[in-house]
Formats: sequence, structure tokens, C-alpha cells
Amino acid sequence: MVSTLQNDRFLRALMRQPVDYTPLWIMRQAGRYLPEYNATRAKAGDFLSLCKNPDLATEVTLQPLERFPLDAAILFSDILTIPDAMGLGLRFAAGEGPKIDRPLRDEAAVRALHAPDPSVSLRYVTDAVSQIRRALQGRLPLIGFSGSPYTLACYMIEGGGSDDYRHIKGMLYARPDLLHHILQVTTQAVIDYLNAQIAAGAQAVMVFDSWGGGLSHAAYHTFSLPYLQQIAAGLTREADGRVVPRIAFTKGGGLWLESMADAGYDALGLDWNVDIGDARRRVGDKVALQGNFDPMALFGTPASIREEVGRILASFGHGDGHVFNLGHGVSQFTNPEHVAVLVDSVHTLSRQYHAV
Amino acid sequence: MVSTLQNDRFLRALMRQPVDYTPLWIMRQAGRYLPEYNATRAKAGDFLSLCKNPDLATEVTLQPLERFPLDAAILFSDILTIPDAMGLGLRFAAGEGPKIDRPLRDEAAVRALHAPDPSVSLRYVTDAVSQIRRALQGRLPLIGFSGSPYTLACYMIEGGGSDDYRHIKGMLYARPDLLHHILQVTTQAVIDYLNAQIAAGAQAVMVFDSWGGGLSHAAYHTFSLPYLQQIAAGLTREADGRVVPRIAFTKGGGLWLESMADAGYDALGLDWNVDIGDARRRVGDKVALQGNFDPMALFGTPASIREEVGRILASFGHGDGHVFNLGHGVSQFTNPEHVAVLVDSVHTLSRQYHAV
Repeated sequence: MVSTLQNDRFLRALMRQPVDYTPLWIMRQAGRYLPEYNATRAKAGDFLSLCKNPDLATEVTLQPLERFPLDAAILFSDILTIPDAMGLGLRFAAGEGPKIDRPLRDEAAVRALHAPDPSVSLRYVTDAVSQIRRALQGRLPLIGFSGSPYTLACYMIEGGGSDDYRHIKGMLYARPDLLHHILQVTTQAVIDYLNAQIAAGAQAVMVFDSWGGGLSHAAYHTFSLPYLQQIAAGLTREADGRVVPRIAFTKGGGLWLESMADAGYDALGLDWNVDIGDARRRVGDKVALQGNFDPMALFGTPASIREEVGRILASFGHGDGHVFNLGHGVSQFTNPEHVAVLVDSVHTLSRQYHAV
Repeated sequence: MVSTLQNDRFLRALMRQPVDYTPLWIMRQAGRYLPEYNATRAKAGDFLSLCKNPDLATEVTLQPLERFPLDAAILFSDILTIPDAMGLGLRFAAGEGPKIDRPLRDEAAVRALHAPDPSVSLRYVTDAVSQIRRALQGRLPLIGFSGSPYTLACYMIEGGGSDDYRHIKGMLYARPDLLHHILQVTTQAVIDYLNAQIAAGAQAVMVFDSWGGGLSHAAYHTFSLPYLQQIAAGLTREADGRVVPRIAFTKGGGLWLESMADAGYDALGLDWNVDIGDARRRVGDKVALQGNFDPMALFGTPASIREEVGRILASFGHGDGHVFNLGHGVSQFTNPEHVAVLVDSVHTLSRQYHAV
């Protein structure tokens, strides 16, 4: 498994080590904005079948790397693999988003919840990680990921996406003990899952707390952040003789960066609400930062994309500890040529801010 | 028009003057969680007809005041009255939310936009304000309101709600001149509209920047906040010999409270992301604060509602300058008895924090 990475800027930046330019990758870089992705997905049948087929998952993981000189690969998968492995019944209905057939709505269902053994029910994921890692041949590091316990619990309780999180919030306020139970079981599942990904070859891991930003300040610090902390404490720290950096991203969590910076992660994801220079001053030298380009800024012109990249780089300023990324997944309606402009702009405009 | 207000705690709190308890009102307090509202709405036919009928708008404005000892009334209307008066073609399709028939997508449409004369095309709103004011007989102050220019522009360009704001963001980045033109025309429309509401009897005004929180830090300070500032500068300051306080609320704008506090408003709305004690320390004595109860906390129990009220009041702490409210409109699925618990909890638990 040991191999020298040809481009380790991403891993170095996450550890706030010197790099010659700001590395970048793009959330959902293997996705529907790429015609080649849509062709592979059509071959697979549906989204879940694509996730569960290591050959096809490897194929789509590599697709954006052939188009753009990105600085990291990310496992192609979905955050809902854990609820699926827990037996809650996951479906992706066409045009409707994910649906959970048996959402957790009563105490009996909550108490019956168990963390899955990833070597059994999530084997297709670790197989994909190993296969992608081999296919990369040391070109780039591979990122593994999971949803956060709170975000997974949102889906598990709501039964799908939600615009108000009425059911999970109802449980949070009326039966916090039940929600804590779900979160505790899910935290163990996430730790086991990410450690299995690391054992299979993931060189960095990211926890997506996509819905934590919908919580109140107090509830975030009670129902999301403590579980993110537990995960960090439970993760394998080194693999292949190298530290495996961890990234936590609470979308909409810009107000809570100070407490997130103490949660045991090497880097924090940023959406575009926060000014990255302010964020850097607030977290100091505790963590690196990843983000914070508005995915919708890719709907501008090549000139405006370049300008927006320049603005973010200037706001971060000189020095290391920044991985460029969008603040959310790239939209399916994005012009791939605009992504090429983004990548080139980051690589060329960032050199002036790095000493090496 | 001059009448002595029997309960002016809301107006006093907005000006950070002493009160004996923390006043509250509830965003969307006249709404679908109330059976009597649904009955009136059924009588009107559809939502827009209800807004356009001053008799029925008056009736629903007063309904929550009969149920709960709230401390302010708010005009029953919709933020999309301005795009409607601009001739863009507003419809409320059943179960679909608002739709604009002729969204602004090309330069010709943008250049043709004009601010409506509220005394003509928005007369039904000012008629409702006058009628509600008479019906209140000085019991409580009446709040007038408008959408913010950026939020109205979102609807005017997207043609309805959106989960990505792709069209307005595309214009923002590719053709900022066109978006600024829309925002400038809309700003004038909002000023004229709010001043007409004040002339008709509104005793405080609120600008809802419901979608400003979707902007980047830089874009918010270029495309939303400057127009909020222009509005504040253009508003009538006194009516009936009393200051007409202004409230600005950017949902998701918790990171930007410092700059919002300098925008010319007397109070800022808060969603539930921000800790109100932190917010108070950040804005100092520049503005009062309104919020910040998670509307979904009403899905807890009477005990948990009371506890959450207590937590927010304790976080704000001793002294004046707080109007209690939800951080977003009350959900249609809310139990009205839980709203009664909220109102009672605020009134009783807050007395210990006030000196008078």
C-alpha cells in the first residue's frame, strides 16, 4: 500500500505545511455536470447501484481527474450508506431525492438501532476505496467521508430531505434522550466506517454535517458538535506511516468556528457565508480551512470566476493552511469549462501567497 | 390618528427603553396553524385574494390577538405585493408557493422595471393598514413590513422560490450592473411602500431579507446591505409624534450583525443560529434585538418550550432592548396551545430581567 504521492499538496495544506500553490478539489466533483458521469450512471441504472458497484464507483471517481488538474480524489459514494446498512430501507426515487422507508419515529424503532459492521454491510464501500486507491497509482491522495451523526439522524428520522426538520426537532426538544441514543449509535457507526475506509486506503477523511447549521447555537453544541468530537477521538491517526488528516464541515456553521476548531479536526470546511480571512483570524493556528467559493459563482463569466477566486485567496492572505473548494457541491447545471477556469485560477493566482 | 397606546412595550423595547417584561410577537402569527385563519382564508378563495381584501386582512390580523396576549399586531400581507404591483404577474398555485409569470431574465425586462406608485397599485395594503389601525383602537402597535430589495429580486428573477438561486446569482456574478439596477428600482419601491404604510398608520416597520443569508460575505455587503441602508435613510422617522422604529432581519445573517448594526435600523432580527447573548455583546448599544426562538422548538413539550424560553432570556440577560419572537414564521403544523405556553413563558419568566 505504501507509495510515494506525486502530489501531496492537499494533505500538506490540511496539516498547515508549506505548499507552492493552494490545492483544490470540488465537492461533488464526480457528478451530474459531467456528461461522462451521466453516461456511467445510465449504465448503472440508478444512483444507489452506482454507489454499490466498486468498478463503476472507481470509474466515476477518476473522471473529473482526467478533465481537471485537481489536487485530491474523493470516494464516490453517498452519506446515506450508513442508514442503508442499518436496515432502514433507502431508496432514491427519480427526481425526488433519497427516501428512508422506515424512519425512526417511535421508541421501539430507536432502541432497535444498531451500528452496522462495515466489513459486512459496507464492504462495497471499502472495496471501492481499495480499488480507487490502486487505480490512482499515487497520483493524488484519496479522501474518504461520512455524514455526521446529526445529519444522518435528520434523514433517519425525517425519512428524507426536509425543509423544516420538524420530526427530528420535535424529538430533540420533547425526547432528547431518544435523539442522543440515535446519535450515539450512529457515532459508533461513523467511527467504524471511517476507520474501515482508512484501513482500505483513504488518506484523509471528511465528516459532512450538512444539516447541523439548522440547529440553534445551544442545540448544535449539544446534539452535533459533541458527536463530531467523539468521532475525531475515535479515528485512526496514521496509515502508511503518514497522518490521516480529518476535516469537519458544518454547512451554515460559520458562527461556531471557534468551538469547532477545538473538536479534534485538522481542518474545517467553510461555506461562502463567512469571510475566509475573518475565519482564519478566529481559528488562529488550530486548524486549516477548506472552502469557500459560492458554487453559484460558477454561473458567472470566466472573468468573474477568476475575480472571485482572487478575492478569496487575498482574503485568506499569505501562508499555508488553505484547501480551496466550493462551499457546497457543484451544481448539475454547471458548465464544465467554468470548472476548468476555477481550477486554473486557483493554481495560478495562489502562487503569490505561498513562500515555497 | 393620535391615540394613547394601551401597550407600547414593543415600541419601547425596539428603542431600548425600559419595560416591565419582554414583549413578543410571532412571525406569521396570523397563519395556517390557526383554524379561524383557515376559515377566513377559505372564505377569501385564495391567499392573494385574502391579502387584497382589507376587510378580511383586518379580520385575520386580529385573530391571533384574540387568542394570545401578544404585544404587537402585524399587517397581514405578503412580501410579493411589490413584484405584483410592478406587473410581473404573481400567482399562488395551490401547494406550490408563489410563482412570478414574467421573471426578469433579460436586459430589456430589467430596464423596463419601474417602482409602482403605492397610492394606486398598493392601495389595498394601505387601506388594510388604516382599517386594522382603527380596529385595534390603541390596544397594540401595528407593524408594517416589506421584503428587502435582494429578497424581492430573488423572486423577481427566479420566478418563485429556489433551492440554489441560480438565476439571480448568475446575474450577480455575470451582470452585476443589471442586478444593481433591479435592486435600485426595488429600493425606491420599498421606501415608497413603507412610507405609505407609515402614513396610513403603521407604528413600526420591518424589512424581511429572507434570502440575504444565501449570499457570500462579500456579496451581502454589495447587493443586500447597501440597499437596506438606503431604505433606512429614506423612511419617515416619526408619525403621531412618536418615532417609528425600524427592524431589519436577514435570515442566516448572524455573521454580519456588526455591519447590520450600522445600517440605520433600531433593531435587528435574529434567527436561532446565533446565541442572543453573543449577539448582544457584538452589537453593543447600537440596536435592539428581536428573536431568536427556533420555531421547531414549539414541537417540544410545554416544559421544554418553557425551558427554551428561559434559556434565551437568560442568554440575553438583564436589561432592555429585546423583543421576543421566533427566528422564522410559525409552522402551519404548530399546536396553538404550545403558542399559548410560549407567550405565557415569555411574559412570566422575563420579569426578573427588567428593572421597572
